[in-house]
Amino acid sequence: MEKRLKYAMVGGGAGSFIGPVHRMAVRLDDLADLIDGCYSSKDDWRAMIERVKGEADFVAVCTPNDSHYPIAKAALEAGMDVMCEKPLSLTVAEAEELGRIAGEGGRMLAIPFTYTGAPMVKLARDLVARGELGAICKTVIEYQQGSFRKIDFSKPLDKRNAWKMDPARSGPSCVVADIGVHAFTLAEYITGLKTESILADLSSFAPGNRLDDDASILMRFSGGAKASIVTSKIATGEDNGVRVRIYGDRASLFWEQESPERLVVKYATGPDRTYRRGAKYLAAEWPAAAARIPAGHPEGFIEAFANIYREFCAAVRDRKPHDFPGAREGVRAMRFVEAAVASSAADGVWRRI
Amino acid sequence: MEKRLKYAMVGGGAGSFIGPVHRMAVRLDDLADLIDGCYSSKDDWRAMIERVKGEADFVAVCTPNDSHYPIAKAALEAGMDVMCEKPLSLTVAEAEELGRIAGEGGRMLAIPFTYTGAPMVKLARDLVARGELGAICKTVIEYQQGSFRKIDFSKPLDKRNAWKMDPARSGPSCVVADIGVHAFTLAEYITGLKTESILADLSSFAPGNRLDDDASILMRFSGGAKASIVTSKIATGEDNGVRVRIYGDRASLFWEQESPERLVVKYATGPDRTYRRGAKYLAAEWPAAAARIPAGHPEGFIEAFANIYREFCAAVRDRKPHDFPGAREGVRAMRFVEAAVASSAADGVWRRI
Amino acid sequence: MEKRLKYAMVGGGAGSFIGPVHRMAVRLDDLADLIDGCYSSKDDWRAMIERVKGEADFVAVCTPNDSHYPIAKAALEAGMDVMCEKPLSLTVAEAEELGRIAGEGGRMLAIPFTYTGAPMVKLARDLVARGELGAICKTVIEYQQGSFRKIDFSKPLDKRNAWKMDPARSGPSCVVADIGVHAFTLAEYITGLKTESILADLSSFAPGNRLDDDASILMRFSGGAKASIVTSKIATGEDNGVRVRIYGDRASLFWEQESPERLVVKYATGPDRTYRRGAKYLAAEWPAAAARIPAGHPEGFIEAFANIYREFCAAVRDRKPHDFPGAREGVRAMRFVEAAVASSAADGVWRRI
Amino acid sequence: MEKRLKYAMVGGGAGSFIGPVHRMAVRLDDLADLIDGCYSSKDDWRAMIERVKGEADFVAVCTPNDSHYPIAKAALEAGMDVMCEKPLSLTVAEAEELGRIAGEGGRMLAIPFTYTGAPMVKLARDLVARGELGAICKTVIEYQQGSFRKIDFSKPLDKRNAWKMDPARSGPSCVVADIGVHAFTLAEYITGLKTESILADLSSFAPGNRLDDDASILMRFSGGAKASIVTSKIATGEDNGVRVRIYGDRASLFWEQESPERLVVKYATGPDRTYRRGAKYLAAEWPAAAARIPAGHPEGFIEAFANIYREFCAAVRDRKPHDFPGAREGVRAMRFVEAAVASSAADGVWRRI
Repeated sequence: MEKRLKYAMVGGGAGSFIGPVHRMAVRLDDLADLIDGCYSSKDDWRAMIERVKGEADFVAVCTPNDSHYPIAKAALEAGMDVMCEKPLSLTVAEAEELGRIAGEGGRMLAIPFTYTGAPMVKLARDLVARGELGAICKTVIEYQQGSFRKIDFSKPLDKRNAWKMDPARSGPSCVVADIGVHAFTLAEYITGLKTESILADLSSFAPGNRLDDDASILMRFSGGAKASIVTSKIATGEDNGVRVRIYGDRASLFWEQESPERLVVKYATGPDRTYRRGAKYLAAEWPAAAARIPAGHPEGFIEAFANIYREFCAAVRDRKPHDFPGAREGVRAMRFVEAAVASSAADGVWRRI
Repeated sequence: MEKRLKYAMVGGGAGSFIGPVHRMAVRLDDLADLIDGCYSSKDDWRAMIERVKGEADFVAVCTPNDSHYPIAKAALEAGMDVMCEKPLSLTVAEAEELGRIAGEGGRMLAIPFTYTGAPMVKLARDLVARGELGAICKTVIEYQQGSFRKIDFSKPLDKRNAWKMDPARSGPSCVVADIGVHAFTLAEYITGLKTESILADLSSFAPGNRLDDDASILMRFSGGAKASIVTSKIATGEDNGVRVRIYGDRASLFWEQESPERLVVKYATGPDRTYRRGAKYLAAEWPAAAARIPAGHPEGFIEAFANIYREFCAAVRDRKPHDFPGAREGVRAMRFVEAAVASSAADGVWRRI
Repeated sequence: MEKRLKYAMVGGGAGSFIGPVHRMAVRLDDLADLIDGCYSSKDDWRAMIERVKGEADFVAVCTPNDSHYPIAKAALEAGMDVMCEKPLSLTVAEAEELGRIAGEGGRMLAIPFTYTGAPMVKLARDLVARGELGAICKTVIEYQQGSFRKIDFSKPLDKRNAWKMDPARSGPSCVVADIGVHAFTLAEYITGLKTESILADLSSFAPGNRLDDDASILMRFSGGAKASIVTSKIATGEDNGVRVRIYGDRASLFWEQESPERLVVKYATGPDRTYRRGAKYLAAEWPAAAARIPAGHPEGFIEAFANIYREFCAAVRDRKPHDFPGAREGVRAMRFVEAAVASSAADGVWRRI
Repeated sequence: MEKRLKYAMVGGGAGSFIGPVHRMAVRLDDLADLIDGCYSSKDDWRAMIERVKGEADFVAVCTPNDSHYPIAKAALEAGMDVMCEKPLSLTVAEAEELGRIAGEGGRMLAIPFTYTGAPMVKLARDLVARGELGAICKTVIEYQQGSFRKIDFSKPLDKRNAWKMDPARSGPSCVVADIGVHAFTLAEYITGLKTESILADLSSFAPGNRLDDDASILMRFSGGAKASIVTSKIATGEDNGVRVRIYGDRASLFWEQESPERLVVKYATGPDRTYRRGAKYLAAEWPAAAARIPAGHPEGFIEAFANIYREFCAAVRDRKPHDFPGAREGVRAMRFVEAAVASSAADGVWRRI
């Protein structure tokens, strides 16, 4: 019988959105027991790491951005695997260091870029890899939220929005670091292409926000393909509008996070094909998509999150890589953030990634 | 601190769809610990009930239809609450008896009519109750599955489809008892109306099926409103097509299970309104819809199921009713099944419910 | 060069919806010149028929239901072809007589069942005929309008609604005769099946309406397939909700009139296919769909109407049948109306068609 | 009674997509008689202009880009009004000259930016103008076609694609000049904002194409709002994917050309509103949207085109401006084209418009 995993959590206390998601995701598939937690900034996470050292298999880091690096570092150095929220750190250098520490220590480091866990995103990646789309030429990704439009700015900000708009805690970027990194990671994850350079135009629209809350970004991949990313926190009325369009010279695909169970593939000639998660025809060729419940019984965000945890926990057990985003993706996302900020500051200059 | 609940399960073993759903739903919100189970027909569920008596707070019944009644009865009589899969029994009489036993023993009896746990279905019900639609005149519900079209009939049936097509185990009806009851329950749950009589035309299209696998049903509510239900297991290409349209004299509403996070309300004059689960504007007036994760982060089938378990577990703790379908709904659904079978057998005669 | 056609119109004056549609449809493809018209009930259509006899190629009849029969009859007997609005007459007998007159006189008689002119409906019919769906088992059609909910009943009815609710002018049925016939015709047109019997439940919900404004109808086709039709004029918030679902044992199809350019075909195994009007891949196998403007440039109601006129005008020139609904469809639709009214009056009895 | 208009056409002969659209649009509403035409490049359009001078009210110019300027100029100078296809010319200077000639001669000059004629685009513009969206911050427009992916490049190009890829006939740009101008015009038309500068990344992906067939463009409006435009002819599987998202600080709107009858308005708080063309509630406040046929009876591309012709023909009669795009829009679109080409050539530099 499988050894039962144990984990501890830093962050994710009262008012947190993502902490409970981690815990629900772990419970959904009964992957591990939560044995300790440091849920408040008043508590001492170093003490907790000492407590669980040798007992916990992994630590989940759900704090604001500025403490990802020290906590992840301490946990890795204490010999535990780490599931660390994005962005992995405040700087590329820190992210690279975490990657190095994990690599040298033989530790697993995962970053829950949630949408890479969505079954239809995995199918998208697989279809591209099999050549179903032909050569990729253009990628268009939107990640539009209206969260900053739901704020009543006449009152003090709630904790979550306060730290997201605070350069000291959020780092050099707000929207690019918070959700733009999802768009960027999706682009590279699905296409399998490597971004060469980007050009960004960042804006701050929300009252009093010193960081970016809207971004339009041009991208160039190695090999000549192009991309466009728009991402925003001032996109009034959008809840979580992740929309991915990828155009190859043979076919294109479209996926929308708010209707995650469908993947549309469109051809130069021939009718569109709509793949449905869990459909029987997927089972043979691609078992992972069909696993939890049948087609037509919607799975969503928590399930996608749990898919990342499944792979991560398998790696924690096996001590070898599985299909989840890790240090490599975390580092690349930080390069994306730094390049976007620098490009925009220079008023539109292509920056290498 | 809340007493931690304990439960045991009968059925839901290898090959079961719904057993794992129960377990995931319970774990998602960390509602109870599974302390025992009788997952195979080779095991003795009576012995298990003896074992857990006095320890388990409730028993989840996930077996084929023919054993719902004896297991639920035994568990109730052993002083435990029961979450029993639909249809509650094979006959109206059995269902009524279970209701009586539960009532007299002060036991909770819940039937997981999953879709009544969907937040937007609850919003639909609330909008109707508040008069937003005016007087309800017409309800049109589809519950279309193509599951029997995915079967290779040249091979022996798998266990699940085998018992569903077997009158001895499934009861007098296949499609009406299995999924038609969801459509019926949704109709009454959302409209708040009581069905007076129905007229059904049942068919058997799948090779070798001795029970109904397709049904078209006319309904009349007390007070004069009308309804139409179509339900099928031979609706090729449909995964789980539950579509609900309810027309009042002031507005109408539309909900589709495969896109569960949206509820559309249409008016005689004025633009359509689309409500989104978890949207901030819902929070004040209707907290339950906004609870788990924010708008735009899709919740689905397991979450809806878990909503029913939340309410049921609250009732198990409080010893008073909460918002979940129970004996009343289970009995009415069985009347619907019996009336449909009888009406069709008489070649189209209105039967009272 | 082709002889240029000439036509005259009866009805379709001020306040008419459908009269202008006929004229726009004819002009869109430059099919004929309108040489005379009798647009008001104060004018004498018999005199107009005398005037245009020998000159007009055809007469378009756009009056209320009660005058379809005498006008069409007079025009046919005057040796002209006729495009007559649905329902063709007030009774089956009248419809049959018109068919006989047209047949004996070698005259073309067309009924503009608009949706049979929609390219994707023609594709649907062709796919069924080629066996793409396998054996048809179930057809589910909705034709839902909320037009009677837009009326301010505290004021006198406008002309159009007044005659539609008046048995003397509308005939024995309102909703079934007015739009139910479209649903019925679509069912037979696409499936190629013949309805054997129906069972109807008609209701009157609009204030003061003496005719049916809501109907739920069960149907049985020769050969064992079943169907369900719901149609209404009190479906608040619906504009013109024609939705067609046809289930074969191999595949199913879905078409929605308000998004007429898409046809979805769903399979027991394999992804859904969405066909788009005008797509290049359709051109080779099915030229008619690709004719007017390319895919992605929406055609709609007027274009579908014009497609019927194209075929009708081709028949007027060629003196041989083309692809448009005629006396046969007009007669069958009247049988549907009579059977629905009789079945409902008998409180739910299957009536042969 | 209104004077009946007369017009002549240059271009729009065999193989033309847009020539027939002009003629159908004019006929749909019976706006004018086509009295002469020069449909082939072998014919002499100067001779035709001489022939119709003094008789035709206007000339419709449907030729490839390189002859727009001389033909429009000649027609204006001959005292006729002009409906000239986009792009208005090959250079900004030519476009400005045409505007000057029209202005000095008191002539009407219209450019059929089709989508500005779509009722829901007009509603979008009106909602923005009334402040329904608050201050506009971000605009995201896609105009994606896969037309160049439908070409078999192993064969000689057909006439239309040949001239579009030929710099001598198409001008300095292919995709930006051909369809990017629609996206740009929509952005300014709906928002009422003026573009200050743009930054473009153009690519050529189609085999042998010397001009751009894919573009990603960043935009800055006067006053601080931002925009992003992506447009392509190599977007495999897209037919005519015009998608417009406009975000204000109070609400946002979404319109999709392939479903042109719906306009979605989303709010920071409160449910989404979906407006439908022709809906009764629009009639009072905005008559133009409700005119031709009722809600639910789809109008499409030809109808939108005809709306521009309606306004243009009214102006031709009244000798005063109506609601159609003219020289101003034509000139601005040419500035957009020139700036895009120059910005991309300089490898990403903001260029003023």
